[in-house]
Parts: sequence; C-alpha cells; structure tokens
Amino acid sequence: MSRIGIFDSGVGGLTVQRAVIDAVPGADTLYLGDTARVPYGTKSAETVTQYSIRNARFLARHGIDLLVVACNTASAVALPALRADLAVPVLGVVEPGARVAARASASGRIGVIGTQGTVASGAYQAAIQRERPDSRVTARSCPLFVPLAEEGWTDPGDEVVRGVARRYLAPLREAGVDTVVLGCTHYPLLAGAIAAELPGVTLVDSAAAVAAEVRAAFGDGPRVADHRFFVTDAPEKFLAVAGRFLGRPVTAAEHVDV
Amino acid sequence: MSRIGIFDSGVGGLTVQRAVIDAVPGADTLYLGDTARVPYGTKSAETVTQYSIRNARFLARHGIDLLVVACNTASAVALPALRADLAVPVLGVVEPGARVAARASASGRIGVIGTQGTVASGAYQAAIQRERPDSRVTARSCPLFVPLAEEGWTDPGDEVVRGVARRYLAPLREAGVDTVVLGCTHYPLLAGAIAAELPGVTLVDSAAAVAAEVRAAFGDGPRVADHRFFVTDAPEKFLAVAGRFLGRPVTAAEHVDV
Repeated sequence: MSRIGIFDSGVGGLTVQRAVIDAVPGADTLYLGDTARVPYGTKSAETVTQYSIRNARFLARHGIDLLVVACNTASAVALPALRADLAVPVLGVVEPGARVAARASASGRIGVIGTQGTVASGAYQAAIQRERPDSRVTARSCPLFVPLAEEGWTDPGDEVVRGVARRYLAPLREAGVDTVVLGCTHYPLLAGAIAAELPGVTLVDSAAAVAAEVRAAFGDGPRVADHRFFVTDAPEKFLAVAGRFLGRPVTAAEHVDV
Repeated sequence: MSRIGIFDSGVGGLTVQRAVIDAVPGADTLYLGDTARVPYGTKSAETVTQYSIRNARFLARHGIDLLVVACNTASAVALPALRADLAVPVLGVVEPGARVAARASASGRIGVIGTQGTVASGAYQAAIQRERPDSRVTARSCPLFVPLAEEGWTDPGDEVVRGVARRYLAPLREAGVDTVVLGCTHYPLLAGAIAAELPGVTLVDSAAAVAAEVRAAFGDGPRVADHRFFVTDAPEKFLAVAGRFLGRPVTAAEHVDV
C-alpha cells in the first residue's frame, strides 16, 4: 500500500496521474496543481525550482511514499534540488520519456518538443544522449501548443492548428526524425495534428513512460484507492476540465496556499 | 516634479509606460513587471488582486505620487482593493479606455477584446455602459493573441495570424461594431491583423487613453526624468524585449521579490 504525490503547474499533469492510476490502481494519489503560478514553461529555472520545492513540501506534509513530478519543465530543471530536499524518492517525466524514445528510434534521429524552459534546459537532449550516444536530437519549443490545447483547438483538419504545427515541426521534419518526445503534458491532446505533420513518426508520451517506472518501483495490489486534488487557484476552473484530462470524474478540488 | 509607479504582470505594460513618458516626460517612473507570476489573464480575481496588492506595496515603499495599473486584468478586478490599500491615487487602464471608446463610436456598437479574466469581470462592459447607456457592447477573450505577439507572429498576411484573428473577431464583425477597445497590453502589436479583419473600425489603445489622464492630473515641467525597472523573474529575458515595447533603450532591470 502506498501513497503517491503528483504535482504539476496546472491541470496538464492529470494526464500523468491518469497513467499512474492505470498502472498502479491500488495506490492512493494526491495531486497538486499550482494554478496560481501556472505556467512554468516561460519562467526561469530558479523560479521554477523555488515553486517546485514549495509544491513538494506541501505534498510531503500529507505523507507520501513517492513524488512524481508531472510537469516537464519542473522535471527538466528542478529534480536535483527536489531530491536534495525530500526524504522520499522523486521521479520526473524527462528520464523515462528519454529512455523510451532512445529505445524506440531506429535511426537515432530523435525530436523533442516542449516549453521554452524545457527545451532551453537541454535536459531531454542530455538524457537521450546518455541513453544512446549515437543519437542526433532536434529540439523545438512550441509556445502556442498549450493555449491551442486549452482553447480546444486540436482538430488536425483545423487550418490554424495545421498552420501552427507545420511551422513548429518543420525543423524536425527537415532533420528526418523517426521518433518525437511530447515533452509537455498538454501535447498529447495535439497528437493527431503532430502526427499529421510527421507521418510515420513514433510519438512518445512521457506520462506512460513514467507510469511504467512507478509500477516497476512499487508493484501493485488489489485495493480501492483514494485520490485527492489540490490547487493553488480557481478550483472551479480546474474541476471544469479535470475529468477530461484524468479520464474519470473529479468531483472536488481543495484550494490551498503552498 | 513627481514619481509615477507602474506595474504589469510582465513586459506588456511597458507600452503603457511609454505612453506615460511621452505624455509626461518630466516625471520619474518606476516599473514593476511580475514576471514570476505572469500571466494574470487566466487567474481568478482573488489571486490577481492579491498579486496586485503586493506589487503596489512594493512600488509604494519606493515613494510614488501616483500608481498606474498597466495590466488590463488587474485594472478590471483589483482597483477597489488597491484604492483601499494605498495612500496615493490609483489609475487603471479600463476606465480611460472605456471613455475614449464611448466617445469615439458613432453607432454605439462597441467591441472589447481582452484576456479571459478581463472579459469575465465585465469591467469594460460596465464602464462603457456608464459612459454611454445606449451602447451595445460585444466582448470576446482572445487567449492566443498574447502568445502570438510574444512569438513575434503579428504580420497581418501570416496565415496563422489571419486564421486566429478571424475566429476571435467573428462575433464583433457580426455585431457590426464601429469601435474596438484593445483591452490587453499585447494587443496593439496585433493592431494590423485586427484592423484587417475589421476594416473601417476604430481601434482604441487604453495605453494612450490612460496617459492622457495622467497628464491631465499631473501636468508636466521641463526636466530630465529617471526611469527604473524591476522584475520578479528573469531580468535578462525582460531586457531582451523591453526596448521594443518601451520604444527606447532599457539597460538594467533589477530582480526583486514582492
């Protein structure tokens, strides 16, 4: 029996929580969305690290056995500081995603898309190179993908969606990548549009990759688990979309200061 | 001689500072960009009010004679709380922009575009109705306009820019507005694309409107003024774009906690 703490800058990390619940259905989870400070992707590594530590300490005070950092930006820049600060194991999404991509690629030409903070950190690029030194990584930040996903403009046939995806993904297509890491929790919502611009390319979702590592670390047993949700701002806005991200109903979210 | 404090959630308020400096060149200014918590437009009124009060108190500690709230979202939701908290006069951008629009419109059909927070607050709609009870206001939030402006995708001939502008502005065109308030500091960068979708419509920039009210309140005298810049995150990113927004060189920005 175990309790897993998960934090993200906002609502996107619910896709990671969903994958974790599917992989380890017997574990309790606590989710914290830092909706008062969202987004992290445009902020400095120092500020994202400071916010991440506050989030982690909040979850640690509730008694957790493992912390999963669902936010790619926080995973990319704050893991060492979180591991130094916490007594429990900390898993981010970058290394699991990088491992899956390094194994999935036939050619070693791998693309990474994420926020400005994630791409600028070089964390995915370094993790993929460690797994597979012969790889050639092409990384691109895609700032409009998050607001597109939040507007619900995700249809691959939509001219705006297609235009934005084509522009951002052009360097990856030119580099001839055969595998792309979706390095932001919102991007799986745009998987159809991304696949349409990069036909035949394997898309790697870090949520599934980290969930598999949680299962490997924790195992699982048959029991009914409990899931709680906290946000630092606007619980009603969180609840309005949470079910869609989590894939099951979310009926309550508590407003907290961290 | 006077010192004017100006705050915004980020860099966009520099367009307001620019208009204020042009209108009152003899006044010193202090600018605070809350880049650690940007954006405000998607957050709750309570959280935006809390951040606004912290920003205002920081500027007040530096000795100001007037506070200008450059952020439309903060102007829309936090002015009563700021006025209750501060000893100096507080001017927001909503009322000046609403006044100019109410006078500029021939038909009384007026459009307002802004962030989700600004539009949901109803502040522009109410201020326009107060100025001109016979008006019919059509308001629309345009969440992709800010990331488009920050990406530098502002060319009216760009297919993505055109597609996004067309979708957001369709309700304004259908309502037959003759005047539109650009109710977010970033939107003037997209004025060309907005005008292309709404030919013949008058665009009202709240920055110029509030600057005229500052001048009326303060007058001006001939002297060389001093301008200081503070940010709560990533001064180097701020400096990289500040000159473009302000219309004159910005050589230093101090990193502060508020």
